Amino acid sequence: MSLIVQKYGGTSVGSVERINAVAARVAAWREQGHQVVVVVSAMSGETNRLIELAKAIQPRPAPRELDVLLATGEQVTIALLSMALEQIDCPARSYTGAQMNILTNSAHNKARIRDIDGARVQADLAAGRVVVVAGFQGVDETGNITTLGRGGSDTSAVAIAAALKADECQIYTDVDGVYTTDPRIEPRARKLSRITFEEMLEMASLGSKVLQIRAVEFAGKYRVPLRVLSSFEEGEGTLITFEEDVVEEPKIAGIAFARDEAKLTVLGVPDQPGVASRILGPIAEANIEVDMIVQNIAADEATTDFTFTVHRNDFPRAFEVLQEIARELNARQVLGDERIAKISLVGVGMRSHAGIASKMFAALAKEKINIRMISTSEIKVSVVVDERYLELGVRALHEAFGLDASA
Amino acid sequence: MSLIVQKYGGTSVGSVERINAVAARVAAWREQGHQVVVVVSAMSGETNRLIELAKAIQPRPAPRELDVLLATGEQVTIALLSMALEQIDCPARSYTGAQMNILTNSAHNKARIRDIDGARVQADLAAGRVVVVAGFQGVDETGNITTLGRGGSDTSAVAIAAALKADECQIYTDVDGVYTTDPRIEPRARKLSRITFEEMLEMASLGSKVLQIRAVEFAGKYRVPLRVLSSFEEGEGTLITFEEDVVEEPKIAGIAFARDEAKLTVLGVPDQPGVASRILGPIAEANIEVDMIVQNIAADEATTDFTFTVHRNDFPRAFEVLQEIARELNARQVLGDERIAKISLVGVGMRSHAGIASKMFAALAKEKINIRMISTSEIKVSVVVDERYLELGVRALHEAFGLDASA
Repeated sequence: MSLIVQKYGGTSVGSVERINAVAARVAAWREQGHQVVVVVSAMSGETNRLIELAKAIQPRPAPRELDVLLATGEQVTIALLSMALEQIDCPARSYTGAQMNILTNSAHNKARIRDIDGARVQADLAAGRVVVVAGFQGVDETGNITTLGRGGSDTSAVAIAAALKADECQIYTDVDGVYTTDPRIEPRARKLSRITFEEMLEMASLGSKVLQIRAVEFAGKYRVPLRVLSSFEEGEGTLITFEEDVVEEPKIAGIAFARDEAKLTVLGVPDQPGVASRILGPIAEANIEVDMIVQNIAADEATTDFTFTVHRNDFPRAFEVLQEIARELNARQVLGDERIAKISLVGVGMRSHAGIASKMFAALAKEKINIRMISTSEIKVSVVVDERYLELGVRALHEAFGLDASA
Repeated sequence: MSLIVQKYGGTSVGSVERINAVAARVAAWREQGHQVVVVVSAMSGETNRLIELAKAIQPRPAPRELDVLLATGEQVTIALLSMALEQIDCPARSYTGAQMNILTNSAHNKARIRDIDGARVQADLAAGRVVVVAGFQGVDETGNITTLGRGGSDTSAVAIAAALKADECQIYTDVDGVYTTDPRIEPRARKLSRITFEEMLEMASLGSKVLQIRAVEFAGKYRVPLRVLSSFEEGEGTLITFEEDVVEEPKIAGIAFARDEAKLTVLGVPDQPGVASRILGPIAEANIEVDMIVQNIAADEATTDFTFTVHRNDFPRAFEVLQEIARELNARQVLGDERIAKISLVGVGMRSHAGIASKMFAALAKEKINIRMISTSEIKVSVVVDERYLELGVRALHEAFGLDASA
């Protein structure tokens, strides 16, 4: 007998029929002798409906009250799923984030989990009950309802699995696993049966939106075995594992990418200590998240060029902030490009194998794709290209590194 | 400065516009220097939507989970109303039933309030914040979410007012006060500026659905001054007060009535001790609520006739149960009538004034309305008549007792 934590996202519980299907699946696991804790999201569309309602009243909703409002979404789902389980004679009991005592800090709308009282539900599990927990939400020390931000249900599931010392945390989603790249772009993309935590982190943060990056970090930190699988099809999915477990994985796990990026460059910045922080400080203060950062050597020796990427939505504001900074720094000019995309090659094998980067650049060059920016880490190489080359670039790299399903 | 508890029902918070209107009203009270606690229901239609969702999954929803589901309705409203208040610069903070620590017993779907931790919100009130509380819901000793049943928000408001020792509990609804009878039936019905608790209890239980009877009982028990007023119009509404306060009230407060009643009679029941409980025991076990009970003397001396009324929805089941009992008791026959209505004259003045009942019967006789059943208490006289005579009977009594607005 093992203890399994399963998480079902909004699409998987998006209708009465789908909730019934989830109940059937959960009950089957229980009948196989497992203890099951189910973590659920709000029914798809519900969170957006609530946000629209809030915005109709307050254009920038008070964060504390927004959490009170949004938390109802998952509360509806836990009640309905518990009913669906009881209807098929599978005893179940629901828990809100507050009832499960999912303690978070007080950062409303983006709270972080601090502690979970696992003991609370052990009696239910021992009595053979399925425990159904509201994902995405918690409670702070003074009893205020908090939410973890979009996609937080994955994090809830992993944190609960860690607190209960579960044997596996299964994330059910609308894809059947992690692929070498997005199959919508490269139909020959191959499903990985295993991937390391580090690779998964890079894949997730780079736009393969299968799992929330915070959930993967959490799983890595607490060593929770994590599996991604489909709530609509049968299959083993993809197991996210620790590097030492990996015996014979390919050097490259996959190719991640991000659309909707924008690039900003300050030309002719005085090349002095502290310049980078003087540029990025005001950007961070404006709550704009920065992705890649590259500092180039400029033509003359007294100045340098400073480039970074942001989400395309943040581009206009970032450009405005940067104009101001450029004036203060006596920089020459601010350039912006809203039509870029990022392609990344990810794999732990990269560490020990030289030549991966050059092979990547060659494959892109063969397709006449101009590289606008490069950034590397231990297990990934990212390039920025014109947005229109995104699909071509992904497919070229997929083939060059032998990731095709037929390979 | 006084402390006011205000309660707004589902219609009053049924849309974004109406929530904004409630916020404006609440903020005005606060600006006049009052401390304000607002208790709200779910937006109109929301509770029914949730119940339908539940029934689509489980025809008889698990009571514990139904409460988890339904409690989201008020939770949405408290968040939205708090946002609406903050939007007009009125500081506010929302509380769910659990957060406010509204402790109830564990009778899901019809829980009763045991205790409220008033201290919890005193700091907010002292800081000048409006406190917005979810009505209709609470939490039991082990942290399970409970609901008080339909209309429970009134009870929540009164209980909170009692716990906080509020100066007044104001129930905002879609009518502007308590009338001598339903103005839809008698256009000359007059609004009462005051009514006693006892009269209000009879009026409420007899079908003048302005206030939940449990809320009135609670208010009477804890001596909470209660006022019913309109959320859409200005006005003083009706104050529900204690008898000793009443100086010169008319003898008759008003005329209540109930449609949707049904009558059942067991003819020829052996006239022995314990027969009444042998008849009503199985009815109660079938969860059927009985309203009026009358036992008539039968034609012969060995047997008697036993009659009671139930809600029309319960009639088929009650009739079935009664057939069984009648067989066991060797009763002669079971009669049923689904087309009856009840009309009641209510007033504390009745106690000291003989002749009220006969005046009532005479007024009905004048209109050729046949009385099928009579039942009296200290402050009311109720008669059962054919349903088709309901309106005629109400109007006849309204005039006979001088209740018309022009009178």
